[in-house]
Amino acid sequence: MERKRLVILGSTGSVGRQTLEVVRSFPNNFEVIGLAADRNTNLLTAQINEFKPRMVFSASHPTLFDNETHLMPTDPDKMASDQSTDIVMVSTTGKAGLYPTVRALQTGKRVCLANKEVMIMAGYLITELAKVSGELFPVDSEPNAIWQCLHGESSNPQRIIITASGGPFRGIPQDSLHNITPDQALKHPTWNMGPRITIDSSTLMNKGFEVIETKWLFNVDWSQIEVVVHPQSIIHSMVEFDDGSIKAQLAVPDMKLPIQYALLFPNRRFNRDIPRFDVSTQSQMTFEPLKMEDYPCYTHAINAGRLGKTYPVVLSASDEIAVNFFLNKQLRFTDIAKVVEMCLEAHVPSEGTDLQEIFQVDMLARSKALEIAKRFMQ
Amino acid sequence: MERKRLVILGSTGSVGRQTLEVVRSFPNNFEVIGLAADRNTNLLTAQINEFKPRMVFSASHPTLFDNETHLMPTDPDKMASDQSTDIVMVSTTGKAGLYPTVRALQTGKRVCLANKEVMIMAGYLITELAKVSGELFPVDSEPNAIWQCLHGESSNPQRIIITASGGPFRGIPQDSLHNITPDQALKHPTWNMGPRITIDSSTLMNKGFEVIETKWLFNVDWSQIEVVVHPQSIIHSMVEFDDGSIKAQLAVPDMKLPIQYALLFPNRRFNRDIPRFDVSTQSQMTFEPLKMEDYPCYTHAINAGRLGKTYPVVLSASDEIAVNFFLNKQLRFTDIAKVVEMCLEAHVPSEGTDLQEIFQVDMLARSKALEIAKRFMQ
Repeated sequence: MERKRLVILGSTGSVGRQTLEVVRSFPNNFEVIGLAADRNTNLLTAQINEFKPRMVFSASHPTLFDNETHLMPTDPDKMASDQSTDIVMVSTTGKAGLYPTVRALQTGKRVCLANKEVMIMAGYLITELAKVSGELFPVDSEPNAIWQCLHGESSNPQRIIITASGGPFRGIPQDSLHNITPDQALKHPTWNMGPRITIDSSTLMNKGFEVIETKWLFNVDWSQIEVVVHPQSIIHSMVEFDDGSIKAQLAVPDMKLPIQYALLFPNRRFNRDIPRFDVSTQSQMTFEPLKMEDYPCYTHAINAGRLGKTYPVVLSASDEIAVNFFLNKQLRFTDIAKVVEMCLEAHVPSEGTDLQEIFQVDMLARSKALEIAKRFMQ
Repeated sequence: MERKRLVILGSTGSVGRQTLEVVRSFPNNFEVIGLAADRNTNLLTAQINEFKPRMVFSASHPTLFDNETHLMPTDPDKMASDQSTDIVMVSTTGKAGLYPTVRALQTGKRVCLANKEVMIMAGYLITELAKVSGELFPVDSEPNAIWQCLHGESSNPQRIIITASGGPFRGIPQDSLHNITPDQALKHPTWNMGPRITIDSSTLMNKGFEVIETKWLFNVDWSQIEVVVHPQSIIHSMVEFDDGSIKAQLAVPDMKLPIQYALLFPNRRFNRDIPRFDVSTQSQMTFEPLKMEDYPCYTHAINAGRLGKTYPVVLSASDEIAVNFFLNKQLRFTDIAKVVEMCLEAHVPSEGTDLQEIFQVDMLARSKALEIAKRFMQ
C-alpha cells in the first residue's frame, strides 16, 4: 500500500501534535510532506527534524527555515494544493485555515477539518466546493461522531443531537461569573484542548459553532439540530433517523480517535494509544436540557447562524478578539458575550458567498471588535 | 413499487401482532400472503378476515380453516418456501420456527428472525445456509441493534456489548427467589412480551440466548461479547470497533422498530406508531456489571454455548419445559436453573450440524427435562 502524503497546517497546536502521534502509530500509512505552524518554532523545528517534510512554513518567522534547514518556505495554501499532497489536516485556529481549505478542495484533496472557523466563516462556500471536488471530513469530535453515525445509512437524518459537556461553569448563574479568571476558564472538565477553544467551550460559543458547522456539513435545517448537556462527554453526538432509531457514537474523550478516523477513513485500525471506553466502569451517563439563558454566547451564535449571510463571519472574528482580550486579562469573562453581541448588532450584512468578501468582512469585524473591546478594558 | 409478499409464522404472538401493525402502517409496501399460528384461533380468524392471505395454518386446529374459510391449510415450511413468498417473519417460539427458517433460506427468502431458539438450536447450520442463499435479519432488539451499528462499517467488530435490563429481580439474591410466582416473574420492567420470553428474561436465560445468537449472527469469539446491565433499556446494544470507537443504538423499548427495520431494510421510514426517544427527558442512563452468580440460568447458557455441539439444543429444550412447569405453578422459580443444569450434565453431545439430529436431540432432551422436572414438582 502506498503511503498517503500528508500536510499538517497548525502542526504545533493540540490537534496538530496529536495528528503526528497518529502518524507515528501508522508509519506505513502516512508520509508527512508539509508542516506549517505559527509561533512555536522550537517544536516546529523538532517536528521537521523528525518527519523531514519537503514543505515548511512558520507564520511568525517566515525565513527561519530558509536559514536553518535550507528549505524554501511554502505558503500553507501552496502546500494544501501541491500536486503531491493527498491529505490536508487543517488544524489551525481562526481564519488561517480558510484559504488553504478552499485550495485543497479545489485541487481534489482529502481535507480533514479541525478548524471550525472555516465552516463558520464560509460554510456555504466550502460545502458547495466539496460537492464538486475533494473530500471534507470533520475532525471535531461532535461532527465526527455525527459523520460516523450517518456512515452507511441511506436515509437522511431526521434529527441530530449534539452533546455538550456544559463546560466548567455548568449550573453557575451568569451574574456570578464576572470575576472568572482565564486560569479558571481554561480548566475544561473533560477535554484537553488549545486555549481559544477551551474558552469558547466555557462560554458555549464553541457549541454554537458546532451547531452552525453541523447545519452546513450535514445539510439539515436548524430545527433538526438539538443540543443536550451530557457532562461525562462519553456520547459525542447522536443521530435520529426517520424510523425513530437513534445511533450514538461513544468514546473516551481523546482527539486521536476522530483524527485517525478522518485520516484512515473508511478503515478503522487498532491504535494502542487510543484509550478504550469501559462501559462497566461508567456507572452512569446523565443528560439535561441546555439552559440557553445561562449561555449568552451560545444564543448569539445560534442567532448569527440563523441570520446567515456574513453574520457568522462577524461572530467568529469578534469572539476571537474578545477571547484574546480575556486571556490577556483585559476583559471580564462575561464581557466576551457583550463584545460579540455589539459587533453583531453593528453589522450590515452581505451575502458571504465570495472569499474576498468574507475576508473583508472579517477584517472590518476585527477592527470593530477591537474598538468595542477597548471600551470594556479593565 | 411492488409490494413485498409476506408470510408471518406465529402471527397471533406478540411479535406477530406487531408485525401486522407495521404492515397496517405501510399498506403499499407489504401484502400478507401467509399466516400461521398455534392456539389463538379467534385472533387468527380475525387476521385472516382482515389481511386475506392465500396460505393459512393453525397448529392446534389443522382443519379449522378448511371448513370456515375454504382455504386449504398450508404447512409453515411450505409457506416459507413458496415461490411467491418474498419475506418470512419467523415469530414463533420454541422449535417450531427451525424447519421453516431452513426452507426459507434454502429458497432465497428474506428471513426476519424473532425466534431465537432457531439460532440456539442450529446456529451453525443456519448461518452456513445464510452464507449461500437468502437473507437472515435479526428482529430481537439486541441483535437488531448490533446489526444497525455494524451496517455500513467495513471493519469487523472488536467487541460487542449487549445490554440487559437485569429483569424484575435485579439486585435480589437468588436464595430469596424461591417463592416467586409466575405473576411476579411476568412483570418485566421495560418490555412487554410473550410469557416464555418474559420468564427467560427474569432468569436472564434470555440474555444467555442472545449471547449465543450474537456469536453466530456476527461471527465473533465468545471473548468478544460482553453483557452489561442497563436497567433503562434505552441503549439496546453497542459495538466497539478496532479504533476504540463505539456505536450504540438507542430507542424507546418497542418491538415495532426492529420489526420495521428488518422488513424495510435498508430503508428507514417514518411511522407515527413508533414512540420517539426524547433524550432531554431521560435524565440518566445507568450501567452495572452483570453479576453472573445472581443468574444461574445465564451461566448455564454461556457454558452450553461455549461447549457447543448439541449442548445448546438441550439448553433450549430443557428451559422450555422448565418454564412451562413454572408457569403452571408446578415448579419453583429457582428450580428452572436446576432442571436445565441437570439436563446439560446428563447430555452426551453430538455435532449438531444436521437437522434430523438436532430434532432428535431436542426430543430426547424434552423427555429428559420432563422426567427431571417431575422430580422437582411441588
